[in-house]
Amino acid sequence: MRAIDATADPRSTPVSRARHPDRLVMKFGGTSVADLERIERVARHVMAAVKAGRKVCVTVSAMAGETDRLVGLTRDAGGEGASRKADYDAVVASGEQVTAGLLALVLQREGVPARSWHGWQVGLKTDGTHGAAAILDIDGETLGAAIDSGEVAVVAGFQGVTDEQRISTLGRGGSDTTAVALAAALGASQCDIYTDVDGVYTTDPRLVPGARRLDLISFEEMLEMASQGAKVLQTRSVGLGMLHGVPIRVLSSLEEPQENPPCTLIVDEEDIMERRVVSAVVPSRAEAKLSLMGIPNVPGMSAAIFTRLAAAKVNIDMIVQSQARTGEAANLSFTLKEDDLARTQAALADMKDEIGFTGVLADQNVSKVSIIGVGMNDHSGVAAQMFETLADRGINIQNISTSEIKISVLIPAEYTELAVRALHDAFSLGEVH
Amino acid sequence: MRAIDATADPRSTPVSRARHPDRLVMKFGGTSVADLERIERVARHVMAAVKAGRKVCVTVSAMAGETDRLVGLTRDAGGEGASRKADYDAVVASGEQVTAGLLALVLQREGVPARSWHGWQVGLKTDGTHGAAAILDIDGETLGAAIDSGEVAVVAGFQGVTDEQRISTLGRGGSDTTAVALAAALGASQCDIYTDVDGVYTTDPRLVPGARRLDLISFEEMLEMASQGAKVLQTRSVGLGMLHGVPIRVLSSLEEPQENPPCTLIVDEEDIMERRVVSAVVPSRAEAKLSLMGIPNVPGMSAAIFTRLAAAKVNIDMIVQSQARTGEAANLSFTLKEDDLARTQAALADMKDEIGFTGVLADQNVSKVSIIGVGMNDHSGVAAQMFETLADRGINIQNISTSEIKISVLIPAEYTELAVRALHDAFSLGEVH
Repeated sequence: MRAIDATADPRSTPVSRARHPDRLVMKFGGTSVADLERIERVARHVMAAVKAGRKVCVTVSAMAGETDRLVGLTRDAGGEGASRKADYDAVVASGEQVTAGLLALVLQREGVPARSWHGWQVGLKTDGTHGAAAILDIDGETLGAAIDSGEVAVVAGFQGVTDEQRISTLGRGGSDTTAVALAAALGASQCDIYTDVDGVYTTDPRLVPGARRLDLISFEEMLEMASQGAKVLQTRSVGLGMLHGVPIRVLSSLEEPQENPPCTLIVDEEDIMERRVVSAVVPSRAEAKLSLMGIPNVPGMSAAIFTRLAAAKVNIDMIVQSQARTGEAANLSFTLKEDDLARTQAALADMKDEIGFTGVLADQNVSKVSIIGVGMNDHSGVAAQMFETLADRGINIQNISTSEIKISVLIPAEYTELAVRALHDAFSLGEVH
Repeated sequence: MRAIDATADPRSTPVSRARHPDRLVMKFGGTSVADLERIERVARHVMAAVKAGRKVCVTVSAMAGETDRLVGLTRDAGGEGASRKADYDAVVASGEQVTAGLLALVLQREGVPARSWHGWQVGLKTDGTHGAAAILDIDGETLGAAIDSGEVAVVAGFQGVTDEQRISTLGRGGSDTTAVALAAALGASQCDIYTDVDGVYTTDPRLVPGARRLDLISFEEMLEMASQGAKVLQTRSVGLGMLHGVPIRVLSSLEEPQENPPCTLIVDEEDIMERRVVSAVVPSRAEAKLSLMGIPNVPGMSAAIFTRLAAAKVNIDMIVQSQARTGEAANLSFTLKEDDLARTQAALADMKDEIGFTGVLADQNVSKVSIIGVGMNDHSGVAAQMFETLADRGINIQNISTSEIKISVLIPAEYTELAVRALHDAFSLGEVH
């Protein structure tokens, strides 16, 4: 069984290309199917694709609010541990089954051959990590034959089946991942992700009115944007698209179907002619900073701390170690998601005596602002321009981290909007290149 | 594949007896699992059975109101024909899946090993009549092994899977049928049906304060009672219990578990020592009467009419044909369920010209009252006593129909309560025998 997203490194080379250029996967999220009127609009999008000669596989989320309702029921029934249990998945997966059935019925009513498929029926095999399962395999043959016959396949998103024949769910955001995995298994030419925005923007339009929709962006950039806090797509689905070479299109389900709708197409870097130095500015307010004071100056201390935090499943970002003089105690600071703060503080309290640091300071009043662009590694001076722009506005940089195509800075939260506007301006992102 | 309820005549001889006296099937309906508090009480009933050493398989309905909500969604999505479609079933079956998962989680939280099972996971095979499927087979081996290992099996009621691997539903009341079919497949000693009453009564206690709970009743009587309008159990599940020799116990889920709870046990006639002449009086107000006037006096007319009505899937009851003199036109009247009236009138209008009758009269102001008892066929004079009792109260009998263990009369609706009270009295049903 070839692992679709479990073991492979999503940054490795694409392994496949569209084998069936007429096959199309479309994905509609919870707000796009929130009521019957919206499901009927989704049906019109599907019918437009069918009319254009595409063999269509659609995957849908639960109606908005439904997953929360079902998760709430399981919490009450099983306490905190419910999400790690197969029976949690058996309950929660029902939300997508309902939407898939309803969309199939609406399509049939409109005269379009269609049927709904649940995860186990399309052979969407996952590992046994209930509540956060990884896709291992999809039976693309059966599904491909179904859509090639002219029948629209409506697949319940977010779910699969384990080797033990139990229903599993992929965790939050799993519907995007389902869509891209289906496109890979079907050898589809493209995966259209319909959402409540019409594409990927140079930055958050609520912060910067001059934010511009990007027509084209590379997987690498999108992956960094998603990792740094852009909400439009799940990191996991972008990585999967990159791995399997499935172009992803982001577009709005709130509009009626039209020719050449506004959208953003996510493709391989090599398919983009003009490589922008900076493509986007991504703010993330959901950050926190922890500082450990007075760490004994003995080799292996940092390793010991981070090994334990990894065991506690905390994702650490932006590490800075400062040490005044040889032989003196060191300070260590790092950032993490605000949601993980309480859990991390508990883990640190547990190791405090053993490691021997003297104190922990937490700061939730921080934001991360990142600039992202594939052209960055060919251009020098990008970091300098970023730091200068922020310094000009009197914004103090607390931490810095970089990758080949990204520079992130940690700043006081109240400067977020100012920093994003200044950087958007400095790198001329509002202008069409 | 041995048909469990599809083809066999439920009135034939029992084919099996409990092979596993420690195995027990328990069924809880929609009002018994309406909210988490009630699901927790259901769990206590299950735990009491586990504590008593039983190997337990539980089957549950959807939370009260949930099936109606889901059916409403499919109606809006697919129009009137939705209930005959596989996608209707894929949506509607989710209600039971949710309850099964929640009960399994509650049991686990209380330290009882448990898991939920969907129809396809227990190999509950049905035919392809979506919305009203018949059970063909259940994989009793897998489920039996699961419960024998000490794990409670919580099976989503009301659903199975077709040969095409699509989810099917058994139609309303299908959860009772699931329960009895599971008991048959498991060779269980008994099937406990928990509902909102504590057993089967001599008549409707809302009409007759002196109505008495029956400790014991035969399958034959219960089948007649269910057919004549008693709501406590579905006809189909009683027939299935009779066919497979599975004793059914009816008891209340609204009480906490207790030793020797009030209940009614339904068993084979031969297991009942004392055969009562009359066991129950069953009123049914949901009746209507149709009279066809001026039917040409030609052979085969009635056959032509009833063949067409059967094709329209109308169930006809209590037929009376009256004909004044040889050679003259005849009148024909019959009763049917009030719900079927509009559909039947439409079918009659379609055949009016062809058959050549002159008019149709509909009367919804009628009730059926039945007396039922297995001892009836050994005793003469029961019918006479019934008619006399009604005549004494000035109640006019419009139609009569009888079977070996039942006499039904059609009367004006406003006399229902009076008739039931008089008959309950006349046959001394309020007294313990």
